[in-house]
Amino acid sequence: MPTLVLIRHGQSAWNLENRFTGWWDVNLTDKGVAEAEAAGEMLSRKGFDFDLTFTSVQTRAIRTLNIALEKMGRLWLPTEKDWRLNERHYGGLTGLNKAETAERHGDEQVHIWRRSFDTPPPPLEAGSAYDLSQDRRYAGIAIPATESLKDTIARVLPYWEGRIAPELKAGKRVLISAHGNSLRALVKHLSGISDDEITGLEIPTGQPIVYELDEGLAARERYYLSER
Amino acid sequence: MPTLVLIRHGQSAWNLENRFTGWWDVNLTDKGVAEAEAAGEMLSRKGFDFDLTFTSVQTRAIRTLNIALEKMGRLWLPTEKDWRLNERHYGGLTGLNKAETAERHGDEQVHIWRRSFDTPPPPLEAGSAYDLSQDRRYAGIAIPATESLKDTIARVLPYWEGRIAPELKAGKRVLISAHGNSLRALVKHLSGISDDEITGLEIPTGQPIVYELDEGLAARERYYLSER
Repeated sequence: MPTLVLIRHGQSAWNLENRFTGWWDVNLTDKGVAEAEAAGEMLSRKGFDFDLTFTSVQTRAIRTLNIALEKMGRLWLPTEKDWRLNERHYGGLTGLNKAETAERHGDEQVHIWRRSFDTPPPPLEAGSAYDLSQDRRYAGIAIPATESLKDTIARVLPYWEGRIAPELKAGKRVLISAHGNSLRALVKHLSGISDDEITGLEIPTGQPIVYELDEGLAARERYYLSER
Repeated sequence: MPTLVLIRHGQSAWNLENRFTGWWDVNLTDKGVAEAEAAGEMLSRKGFDFDLTFTSVQTRAIRTLNIALEKMGRLWLPTEKDWRLNERHYGGLTGLNKAETAERHGDEQVHIWRRSFDTPPPPLEAGSAYDLSQDRRYAGIAIPATESLKDTIARVLPYWEGRIAPELKAGKRVLISAHGNSLRALVKHLSGISDDEITGLEIPTGQPIVYELDEGLAARERYYLSER
């Protein structure tokens, strides 16, 4: 039976400050590091092991993976890092905290951006402090100016189908360290969650989510490892 | 001009205790972590950047790489981990400190094992506490029972030729984090050092070694980054 475990990165500096982060490369807090350590220890203690790991190109997800793998004695596992597992791009909201955003755009509009399936926030302005067009890691990639959850799903799923699903079908045990919305994309797909419901599904930081899949990768069960 | 930087992992717990380590998977000390951080900061400050990274499947080299990359803001770079960059396998000496080894085998014999190009130490005994035959990372690999430096070179160079040299020739900037003897193998090859001389060449921990190579990967210059 294919094994898949998803983990959202531990707390980042901007999670703590309640700021929209998206593609901005914010590091883990000490609490985030501790969450990643605890995740690795729990996976190890509960007998989980892996053959292959995937993560985004964002520091907070890569470090979460590395810290968990170190705790498992599995730093030597292969890791593929890909921008398609990045967090949703929050466009012009990047860097704003929730209060600033509400003040500028109104509570209702912020609620729509956070909870709508297909309404993207305003685009990031050119020349913004959070412009990534000169960031070498995205060379050759059409960096989005903003993304709805639907847009995020549209780049996560081809990566899932092209790179991750074939490894699971070949019997590899897979660990993915990623972000709230790139993991929502996977959970929506695997658990068949509707467009309306997925925006309300919270993915907690640093909590391994286990999928028991059948041979065709249909989900038999999904659970938080901490609850077993 | 192809850029190649080599770095030996920072101090490990057994470097500190003066014990033969080889393939045993010993972690970095706090000093080793600080060395890796300093290496990353120095590389960044001196304007070095990379496209691709390589390391062994041993925690101390992987962590050195990850810590240096984090300091450079380059954790997102691709990393290939391969056992052929592992430290020399010290066979039956694994786990012994230098004093114990001298007591058991005599100073002169220890000197021969450490400094001979082609005399391997006695093989690791089956059932030894340091037996790695059940370690999943080496599944499918003919784990050596012991290695001379010559044996180490014989598995490092095919990896260099097959995986690393083609990337350099394609214009990729490469960072390799590895071990005293796997790096000796590369330095011997690149700098044309004799069998007799290479065993006396000390590779300090955590010190980036820069190679300026020509298009055919012949070494124009080799220097410690700390000296420029």
